[in-house]
Amino acid sequence: MAAANTEALEALQQRLREFARERDWDQFHSPKNLAMALIAESAELVEHFQWLTEAQSTQLPDEKLREVEQELADVFLYLLRLADKLNVDLLAAAAHKIDLNARKYPADKVRGSSKKYTEYDGQ
Amino acid sequence: MAAANTEALEALQQRLREFARERDWDQFHSPKNLAMALIAESAELVEHFQWLTEAQSTQLPDEKLREVEQELADVFLYLLRLADKLNVDLLAAAAHKIDLNARKYPADKVRGSSKKYTEYDGQ
Amino acid sequence: MAAANTEALEALQQRLREFARERDWDQFHSPKNLAMALIAESAELVEHFQWLTEAQSTQLPDEKLREVEQELADVFLYLLRLADKLNVDLLAAAAHKIDLNARKYPADKVRGSSKKYTEYDGQ
Amino acid sequence: MAAANTEALEALQQRLREFARERDWDQFHSPKNLAMALIAESAELVEHFQWLTEAQSTQLPDEKLREVEQELADVFLYLLRLADKLNVDLLAAAAHKIDLNARKYPADKVRGSSKKYTEYDGQ
Repeated sequence: MAAANTEALEALQQRLREFARERDWDQFHSPKNLAMALIAESAELVEHFQWLTEAQSTQLPDEKLREVEQELADVFLYLLRLADKLNVDLLAAAAHKIDLNARKYPADKVRGSSKKYTEYDGQ
Repeated sequence: MAAANTEALEALQQRLREFARERDWDQFHSPKNLAMALIAESAELVEHFQWLTEAQSTQLPDEKLREVEQELADVFLYLLRLADKLNVDLLAAAAHKIDLNARKYPADKVRGSSKKYTEYDGQ
Repeated sequence: MAAANTEALEALQQRLREFARERDWDQFHSPKNLAMALIAESAELVEHFQWLTEAQSTQLPDEKLREVEQELADVFLYLLRLADKLNVDLLAAAAHKIDLNARKYPADKVRGSSKKYTEYDGQ
Repeated sequence: MAAANTEALEALQQRLREFARERDWDQFHSPKNLAMALIAESAELVEHFQWLTEAQSTQLPDEKLREVEQELADVFLYLLRLADKLNVDLLAAAAHKIDLNARKYPADKVRGSSKKYTEYDGQ
């Protein structure tokens, strides 16, 4: 992956570092605590969808979409912060994981079968 | 944010699109379902930390860190996939959310106080 | 609520106390950690449903239902353990919460409307 | 388990059934959706603890404890509702799961070792 590509993520992580430092919040940002905050934000995302049908979830009204967008951002920010604290390169880890998944779920074996799909656990 | 900055995320999203298409899994990827998958992966992250002290969570053994890295990747991939399905620009949304947070939690008001901190609910 | 009614829950809590004591695991069972374990078990429940349609989720095959039953049990055990650690009477708290919800969501105001429903956040 | 012991849970489940029926909310209460609601409530519990130390989590101020109590109740209510929808006997499932755990984690093998503990995944 080109160096330029990671700049945006690193810039966000840098802002989050400063954000925490300026508020003296770094003391709260252990990986354990950040993992808790990440799942709490994920749950706020889930809350938006829990009473919708799948079809409704594909056609959110604008106002709701704006709210969902903020929840996605919250998850992303905690994910970036946690990765930063653990010195994990998110882009490299994600690219690597797709490669692993491609080997784990060969297209010709799992195609079009929800039964197959549900026996697998991943993306 | 420069156009180049978003390339890496878009490239990952493009790969995830193809991944789902080749397996005919797009039918399962409603935003509702993806939100569930996202929180399930977040929970696998939480599991790694639940019996550790905060101090231990800052010093993971290499093997455990490799596992955590994969969980972070899983969360990231579902986040990217969900954002793609909802046409949300994650980088822009994240940058916007940091701005909002900076106004919501002024540094000089919340600095160094865990009490203040716990009264707030965000990053 | 009659005294007899709470016996089963207290008996389970007593067994969990002994279980932890015999293994010297009480040191890990802070409310913070138990809350993490509870949500991790909740996520294992969610995983069973994430790729199913709502209709499918109402008609689980026997084998899957047995697995789901175990996840429900896991959530319940951590909930009981956490309530025990916090000296919370779960049955009383639940009965009280239903009363609160009944006032919050008057039947004649919210009946049959998913729109109304989604504007509310509770049971 | 004596018949009387399960009465309280069944009474709560009966109240939840009526609650949903009176509001015509049963249509939203698929197991899939209830699992989502359960984890969302679990996350509200987690939020209360995410910035606290483990020690602080054992000594919650009264006001916070009242809030946590309500979150525990919410988790419990959705758990009861989901078990009801799936015809799962929560008390029996929980008792059975403790038996399984006792065999899985023999006290003399896992006692007092956080290392051992973290290699296991359960209660």
